[in-house]
Amino acid sequence: MSLLQTTLAAIRAPDEGAAAAAQLKLDGKTKPLGSLGRLEELARAVAGIRRAAVPDMPVKAIVVMAGDHGVAEEGVSAFPQAVTAQMVLNFANGGAAINVIARQVGARLLVVDVGVKEDLPPAHGVRPARVMKGTRNFAKGPAMTREEAVQALEVGIAVAEELAREGVTLIGLGEMGIANTTAASALTAAFTGRAPSEVTGRGTGIGDEAFQHKIAVIERALKVNAGATDPIDVLSRLGGLEIAGLAGVVLGAAARSIPVLTDGFIATAGALAAARICPAAAGAILASHRSVEAGHRVQLDALGKKPLFDFDLRLGEGTGAALAMAVVETSIRILREMASFEDAGVSGSVR
Amino acid sequence: MSLLQTTLAAIRAPDEGAAAAAQLKLDGKTKPLGSLGRLEELARAVAGIRRAAVPDMPVKAIVVMAGDHGVAEEGVSAFPQAVTAQMVLNFANGGAAINVIARQVGARLLVVDVGVKEDLPPAHGVRPARVMKGTRNFAKGPAMTREEAVQALEVGIAVAEELAREGVTLIGLGEMGIANTTAASALTAAFTGRAPSEVTGRGTGIGDEAFQHKIAVIERALKVNAGATDPIDVLSRLGGLEIAGLAGVVLGAAARSIPVLTDGFIATAGALAAARICPAAAGAILASHRSVEAGHRVQLDALGKKPLFDFDLRLGEGTGAALAMAVVETSIRILREMASFEDAGVSGSVR
Repeated sequence: MSLLQTTLAAIRAPDEGAAAAAQLKLDGKTKPLGSLGRLEELARAVAGIRRAAVPDMPVKAIVVMAGDHGVAEEGVSAFPQAVTAQMVLNFANGGAAINVIARQVGARLLVVDVGVKEDLPPAHGVRPARVMKGTRNFAKGPAMTREEAVQALEVGIAVAEELAREGVTLIGLGEMGIANTTAASALTAAFTGRAPSEVTGRGTGIGDEAFQHKIAVIERALKVNAGATDPIDVLSRLGGLEIAGLAGVVLGAAARSIPVLTDGFIATAGALAAARICPAAAGAILASHRSVEAGHRVQLDALGKKPLFDFDLRLGEGTGAALAMAVVETSIRILREMASFEDAGVSGSVR
Repeated sequence: MSLLQTTLAAIRAPDEGAAAAAQLKLDGKTKPLGSLGRLEELARAVAGIRRAAVPDMPVKAIVVMAGDHGVAEEGVSAFPQAVTAQMVLNFANGGAAINVIARQVGARLLVVDVGVKEDLPPAHGVRPARVMKGTRNFAKGPAMTREEAVQALEVGIAVAEELAREGVTLIGLGEMGIANTTAASALTAAFTGRAPSEVTGRGTGIGDEAFQHKIAVIERALKVNAGATDPIDVLSRLGGLEIAGLAGVVLGAAARSIPVLTDGFIATAGALAAARICPAAAGAILASHRSVEAGHRVQLDALGKKPLFDFDLRLGEGTGAALAMAVVETSIRILREMASFEDAGVSGSVR
C-alpha cells in the first residue's frame, strides 16, 4: 500500500473512554463543576485524541507549508508572487510573526517548501520538499494532477510522522503562499456547495474592484474544474501544494493520535480537505481562532468545530494556531496539576 | 494628603503619542496592514499606558484579593463560607486553578487577605492585610463604613505600588470570597442603574429557587442602602473588601502607568468601582475574558472595554486575567521582535 493508504487505514476516532476519564478527573478539582468552560472541553478532547486520561504536557510544533499558485497571474492578491519566497526566508531568519509567536509559546517551527516558485537558497529551518514550482492556474485547468496532489499529501504525512517520532504531541498548521486565499475559497465552495461570493474575502487586503475580480476568477475556476470524482480530485483541481501538504499533516497526525490545531482560512481549507478524504480525521482537529475571512466560519461549521477565540487575525502563517497552543497547554496543565477537593481539604458544594 | 488622594492626583490618561508611535512601528512589520487585529490593538494600548512606543517585555503579577461577605448568611452561594479560607490555603499550597495558570504564563502570584472571616495560619505567599473579618450583611445595612472601604482601597494601592517598585509592569486581578457574585451584582446594579435581575447570575452554580432568592436579596440590599453620595459610598455600602482592594490595585496601577487586566464578574466590579471613583483610571484597564455571568457584559460595556476571549469561564481567582497575560505578552513581543519589510527585504503591497 502507498503511504497515503496505510495512513488512512490507521486513523481511528478519538477514545471516548479516555475523554470521559479526563472529565471525571476535572470534576474532582477544587472549582465549581464545569467552571473552567472551554479549558475543560479542550483537556477532554486532547485526552480522547491522545487516548490517555491524563496526557503528558504537549510537545509543540508548528508546520508552515509554503507553495505558489498559478492563479496569482490573474491578479487576485495585493502582493507580488515573489513575496512567497521572500517570506520563507523571513521565516528562516526568525523575523516573521509566526517566529515571534512560536518563540513565545515554546513551539518548534518547521517550514516546508512544498512548492515555492522561485529557487530558495539553502536556509536553516526550511525543509526542501518541492513537488513542483507552484501550481498551474486553475482558472484555466486543474491546479495539479492527482499524482502531484497525492505527492503533496504524502509530504505532509511524512512530516507528521517524523515529528511524532521525535516526540511532538501537538501540531499547529501554518502556511505561506501568495494567492492562496483564492485557492482556499475555491476549495471551500467546492467542498461545501456554497457560492464563491459567500466564501471569498479580501485576503491580504485588496480593494473593491480586485475583490469582485477575485470572485469572478473563482467562479470561472469552479466551471473549468467541474466534475471531480472524489475529495482528492477536488483538492488536485482547486487546491494548492501547501494546502494539500497541510491536509497530509492532519492525516498523518490523526493516524498517530496527535491533535492538530487549525489556523486561519487557508490552513482550515487543508483541514477540511483532510476531513473530506477521511472523516475520522476530523476527530484529531482542534479549531484555534476564527479569522476575518468570510469563508472561515463556513469551513469551521462544515468541520463541526467551534473556534477558541476571535482576535480579528488575517495573517495566516500559523499565528492563530500558535496562540491557541498556549491555551491547549494550559488545559492539560489544569488536568495534571490542579488539586482535588480531597487533596486540598476544601468543602464541596452544599446545594 | 492621604494615600488615596495622592494616588488619584497622579492618574493620567494614556499617552496617545506613544500609542500612535507603536502603531506606526507595527505598520512597518512584514505582514499585511492591520492583519494581527487585536494583538496590534493590545500592543498599542500597552504602549499608551506604559508611555513608551516600544514597552519592555511585561513582568507579570496576579493579585488575588480574598475577603468574606456578611450576605453569605442569606444563603446566596452554593458553597459554605469556610471555603474562602480553605481556598486561600489552597492558593498558598499551589493547588488551585490560578496557581496552575500563573505557572503556565510565568506570572508571580500574590494572595492578599484583605478580609477573610476565619483566622488563617501564616502561609507562604499570603499577605495579611485584613481590614475586618468579612463585611456586614448588606441586606440589612451597609457592608462597610466609608473608612473601612478606604482602608481596603489603600491596601490595594499599596500592593500596586510595591509591585511597581519591584519591577512589575503588568497586573492581573483575581479574587476569592464566598458570596461575592452577590456583592458584584449589587454594585453593578448601583453603578449602571440596571435592575438586579439583569446583572445577577448563578455564581458557583445555584439552582432556580436559590437564584430567585439571590435576586430578591440584592433588590432588598439596594433599597436598604439607597442614597449613596459618591462612588466610594456605593462601594462601602454594597461592595466587598476584596472588591475594594482590587479597585485600589487598579487605581495604584493606573497611577504608576501599569496596565491592569480584568478577570471575571467580581474583579471587573472592582475595576468598574475604580473607574467610577476616577474615570481616567479606565485608561489603564484591559479586558481579558467575558465570563458566563450575565452582568459581566454590562460591566464591560459600562467600562467601554471589549473582552479578548470567551472561554465560558466562571471561576474567578484571576484565571481569565492570567490567560490573557500571555496574549498581552505576545503582542509586545510582536512589537519588539518582528522584522520590518525593510529589514527582511520583503516586497510591500502593490495595490
